[in-house]
Amino acid sequence: MARRKDKLKLGAFLLFTGHHVAAWRHPAAGEGTSLGDYVELARLAEAAKFDTIFFADGVAARLSNLEAASRKAHSGVYPFEPITLLSALSAVTTSIGLIATASTSYSDPYNLARQFASLDHLSGGRAGWNLVTSSDPEAAFNFGHEAHIQHGDRYERAEEFADVVLGLWDSWEDDAFPRDKPSGRYFDKDKLHVLNHKGQHFKVRGPLNTPRTPQGHPVVVQAGASGPGKELAARTAEAIFAAQITLDEATAFYADVKGRLGKYGRSEDDLKILPGIFPVVGRTEAEAHDKFEQLQDLIQPEVGLGLVSALAGGFDLSSYPLDGPVPDLPETNAGKSRQALVIDLARREKLTIRQLYLRIAGARGHWQVVGTPEQIADTMEERFENYGADGFNIMAPIMPGGLKDFIELVVPELRRRGLFRQEYEGSTLRDNLGLKRPANRFSRHAAAAAE
Amino acid sequence: MARRKDKLKLGAFLLFTGHHVAAWRHPAAGEGTSLGDYVELARLAEAAKFDTIFFADGVAARLSNLEAASRKAHSGVYPFEPITLLSALSAVTTSIGLIATASTSYSDPYNLARQFASLDHLSGGRAGWNLVTSSDPEAAFNFGHEAHIQHGDRYERAEEFADVVLGLWDSWEDDAFPRDKPSGRYFDKDKLHVLNHKGQHFKVRGPLNTPRTPQGHPVVVQAGASGPGKELAARTAEAIFAAQITLDEATAFYADVKGRLGKYGRSEDDLKILPGIFPVVGRTEAEAHDKFEQLQDLIQPEVGLGLVSALAGGFDLSSYPLDGPVPDLPETNAGKSRQALVIDLARREKLTIRQLYLRIAGARGHWQVVGTPEQIADTMEERFENYGADGFNIMAPIMPGGLKDFIELVVPELRRRGLFRQEYEGSTLRDNLGLKRPANRFSRHAAAAAE
Repeated sequence: MARRKDKLKLGAFLLFTGHHVAAWRHPAAGEGTSLGDYVELARLAEAAKFDTIFFADGVAARLSNLEAASRKAHSGVYPFEPITLLSALSAVTTSIGLIATASTSYSDPYNLARQFASLDHLSGGRAGWNLVTSSDPEAAFNFGHEAHIQHGDRYERAEEFADVVLGLWDSWEDDAFPRDKPSGRYFDKDKLHVLNHKGQHFKVRGPLNTPRTPQGHPVVVQAGASGPGKELAARTAEAIFAAQITLDEATAFYADVKGRLGKYGRSEDDLKILPGIFPVVGRTEAEAHDKFEQLQDLIQPEVGLGLVSALAGGFDLSSYPLDGPVPDLPETNAGKSRQALVIDLARREKLTIRQLYLRIAGARGHWQVVGTPEQIADTMEERFENYGADGFNIMAPIMPGGLKDFIELVVPELRRRGLFRQEYEGSTLRDNLGLKRPANRFSRHAAAAAE
Repeated sequence: MARRKDKLKLGAFLLFTGHHVAAWRHPAAGEGTSLGDYVELARLAEAAKFDTIFFADGVAARLSNLEAASRKAHSGVYPFEPITLLSALSAVTTSIGLIATASTSYSDPYNLARQFASLDHLSGGRAGWNLVTSSDPEAAFNFGHEAHIQHGDRYERAEEFADVVLGLWDSWEDDAFPRDKPSGRYFDKDKLHVLNHKGQHFKVRGPLNTPRTPQGHPVVVQAGASGPGKELAARTAEAIFAAQITLDEATAFYADVKGRLGKYGRSEDDLKILPGIFPVVGRTEAEAHDKFEQLQDLIQPEVGLGLVSALAGGFDLSSYPLDGPVPDLPETNAGKSRQALVIDLARREKLTIRQLYLRIAGARGHWQVVGTPEQIADTMEERFENYGADGFNIMAPIMPGGLKDFIELVVPELRRRGLFRQEYEGSTLRDNLGLKRPANRFSRHAAAAAE
């Protein structure tokens, strides 16, 4: 196969004590509860020339299984809210992209458009918005709803939400603010565009009260892998945090999503697919497995069982024998793609409930690789060269050590193979991801060019 | 009169190019459009031991008079959104308080509670929320409403909004997260409290998915001076940004608000009153007046007239002769207290429309003092010693120069008189403002102490 000409992209998916569910109990884990912890991680990733740091988010503590929740760091109680945290990090970094998750189901499009625009201004063009619809059934109760919002309704709202936000981001043309002291002209009225959106879910007049941002608009990222999720991504996303485990699943997903771009007038380069990878790196295979087992030994049974239940769509498995097979589960209203991934894994490998929780506890359903730097680089290279990925979102098992391991051991190996950059290509997230800067849809210049 | 034993507080009210409406046209004005501009201002204020930096906000561009709006920097189009901007500044400052404005009419209480909690964590206990109800009639159209929300309805919603936010901030007790590695206990279930709020405007279950913050909760600040505004402040605010112009008005407002605290079980020390002051400082009187006239000469007539209309409740004065008297105006739905201030000023001094706009253009209705450092310190001392203020929110006419002038010339004079601190009293905003750290309403310890 012909070697790909582009280089792979790397994101650091930061999750306080680390992505392994028991990482917080490890003696070497940081607490991840002070800004300084994240400044350290962000600077590590930036020194290694990562494209982005990324934060997940949710708008409810996940406490339906309170005993299990109280025994782990990953119960949806975050030390910081991501937009504020990334804003803080914008002041102490210079080049790395800053991607925050925010929900279309439980946010307001005007406020969200404005905060992400502000982050893009603060960072000089390094902001990204990971658009999620919030599959957590608990979230609705914090926002005035009597019940969880159905999957289909969430995606319908998300479609319109994205349109409003993208429209608001074009409220002003790039050169709308001459701020000309002699003539007294602060902005140019002809370069102001009022959205006047009136839809099913939103009525938003505009304009956004923030100038157009350095990147034109922040990079739009998505993660949904259901049908509506892929369609929304094909229409509006510029990067996808994918979650397929096998190479076959990854290449199929890649081809599926990239194949949907054409009908929206977009090219394959306009959307980068970045699977999550949970790498446990050792200088030898034995060292890697040793590191992994140290973490596995810290998993409490209440936590493992609760994790499987949560990933399997909120369905409670506690009444089934731990060492029996995973039962057939009804389809629920939670994230459909996640549920399918978990159940497919159990079926494929004929796992018991206990084996399943030990298998997925680490990466919590994501793609897990335990090995030497060469082995991990081999796997990444294979997935990249076979068009299963344009890059990877690194989910270090433990912070900061796991991220340091990856940077010190795997990144040099990727560079030796010519797969990863030596220096940043530019100063914005778009420059580094290789994404075009979008034209303003309303500008007469753009309209003329399109005629 | 006995000298007050406490010292006065100082806030720096940062508004990009400065508070004078024509400051942006001055050759020495910064653009205030890059993070670096605000890092410089924040560090200046922190080096001078100011209590806080403060940002106003609105959620709509104020474009009803488009020609006037396009000729000024103060048209509601902000270079940054305040919560994100202050989060960025939290990473590059260590001691100064960070107060952001956010609206109860156009925000969601769960998201707002969480972002301010996050800012308090990021800054190690330096966050403040300036609660506003958004008097701007344009804002409603960006949030799905068909018309402006009435003053009374806004305050009713604000009362409940504040209760929800304060309740969510007590979701976890201070020591709810032992993060005990050996026992595997990350949080203590007994120190979690679910709000279960069900009111007229909001249904919010909780808990907030953020631990309790370093200050217990962020400092709550308000600015409303109407009857409902003062009552809400007396019940929930810990600082007020007041806007009275004369000493008599200031002492009356001070006594009025402080007098309302008792019925809510609060003492006078629990609420600090900080009037805005627009100081034009010169080494001599002539230099001060010269500086002021330089700015006044830059005011464009369209802007001056538009400003008066906006402050007078959105009422359009453009059909009246510029050199004729200010006509009687009908009461509008906009901020009532602002409107009264402007009209009282015109009546008291028998101003024409042109004279009125020249008079209020600078401080836009706020208290303006032009003079030497001694004269400005005299005025501040008088207002402080007569219980018209617990401190001041400094509205520099031009940035960064006007703030530098105040710091270099007036602050040393205040220190010579023993009125202002030499060093910060503590590390949190509460420490420096002299505010108690609130007990968690739900903790058994607090409940037992109250019995």
